[in-house]
Amino acid sequence: MIYMCLGAPGAYIPPNFKKESGDFVIGVDHGTIVFRNHGIKVDLAIGDFDSLDEEELAYLNEIDEVISLPREKDDTDTEAALKWILAQGLEGEITIFGAFGGRLDHSVSILWLGYHPILEQIVDRVNFVQKDSFLKFYFPGIHEIRDERHWRYLSFILLTPISNLSLSGVKYELPGVDVARPRAYISNEFVEDKMTLAFQTGRIAMIQAADDHRF
Amino acid sequence: MIYMCLGAPGAYIPPNFKKESGDFVIGVDHGTIVFRNHGIKVDLAIGDFDSLDEEELAYLNEIDEVISLPREKDDTDTEAALKWILAQGLEGEITIFGAFGGRLDHSVSILWLGYHPILEQIVDRVNFVQKDSFLKFYFPGIHEIRDERHWRYLSFILLTPISNLSLSGVKYELPGVDVARPRAYISNEFVEDKMTLAFQTGRIAMIQAADDHRF
Repeated sequence: MIYMCLGAPGAYIPPNFKKESGDFVIGVDHGTIVFRNHGIKVDLAIGDFDSLDEEELAYLNEIDEVISLPREKDDTDTEAALKWILAQGLEGEITIFGAFGGRLDHSVSILWLGYHPILEQIVDRVNFVQKDSFLKFYFPGIHEIRDERHWRYLSFILLTPISNLSLSGVKYELPGVDVARPRAYISNEFVEDKMTLAFQTGRIAMIQAADDHRF
Repeated sequence: MIYMCLGAPGAYIPPNFKKESGDFVIGVDHGTIVFRNHGIKVDLAIGDFDSLDEEELAYLNEIDEVISLPREKDDTDTEAALKWILAQGLEGEITIFGAFGGRLDHSVSILWLGYHPILEQIVDRVNFVQKDSFLKFYFPGIHEIRDERHWRYLSFILLTPISNLSLSGVKYELPGVDVARPRAYISNEFVEDKMTLAFQTGRIAMIQAADDHRF
């Protein structure tokens, strides 16, 4: 299993998370420090590290492999990390913490990974895990999605026009419709322990989310 | 001036915000309660109100105009509010608080307003204002954007492929390029008190953002 942590403030690492033998842990930019602060040894740190202070930068010297990216670049740090995983031939699921919840433009740029060509090569492997939300990208096909988290809300974010979209096993079903523009179908709900998402063309982001904490 | 507040937890209302004569204030769903808690009289409350508790629902009786939407609907509460503004012929800028920062799928659905046909009729009027970020949508043309907030980051989120995109008066300029897929150009910066965004086809969301609060 591959674990990555990005640099969102308040980045969430599940309290029971433990690095097992065979796991590969990647700190992306400030995510490196998040892992350190949780006592988790990072195998690779990658980023431009421009948000790290002096003491944090010194910590990079203790890491076996560090890839320093230029600040101005075509790919985001996250895309560079995923390309590195593909280039090295590292197999297995990729769980990404700390993607959302920080600066609005940062969060959006992670969601925009959904439009990046690299996604075609890794879409089945990548899970974004937050404290109160879980995101996964889907390409055309028939997908069974399980209600593993038992959170209330299940949302489908259409990144593109979509043909023959059907949702079954949910509170608000869709029978196989063509959707001409990107739309956000939010606040659906599981009615059983699994549901089926099917579509023929386009890309979709699925989000499972817990209720807002009231303020 | 029209002010709207959506229901994001921790919704930000600027501390110096005061309702002036001629202003029209719209509470969207739980945003109604946010305005109340800031002592601001709401002229219209609109939403499905399914997140309000009993005491909050009782408060709706004190509001002159309340539009109750069904829970399952094609438009979001925000889109319904914007349609209402257009139907009534209400003029002036529309400042929207409380759009981002709550549930991930909620935030995304607000950004997806950028793909809604209604945006064509109101794009020049709508500003999304948060404590540490400011979002505005742009359609093709030449746009002067001012550094009114003096925050560090300036990001351009391409919602579609874009032709002849140029950014000038910024740290990382673009000379008039065609971009074939939606991309997020984040963490640019003003170098003067204003910059120019120009493009010929497509839709773009501009975000100005303050530095992350470190955790």
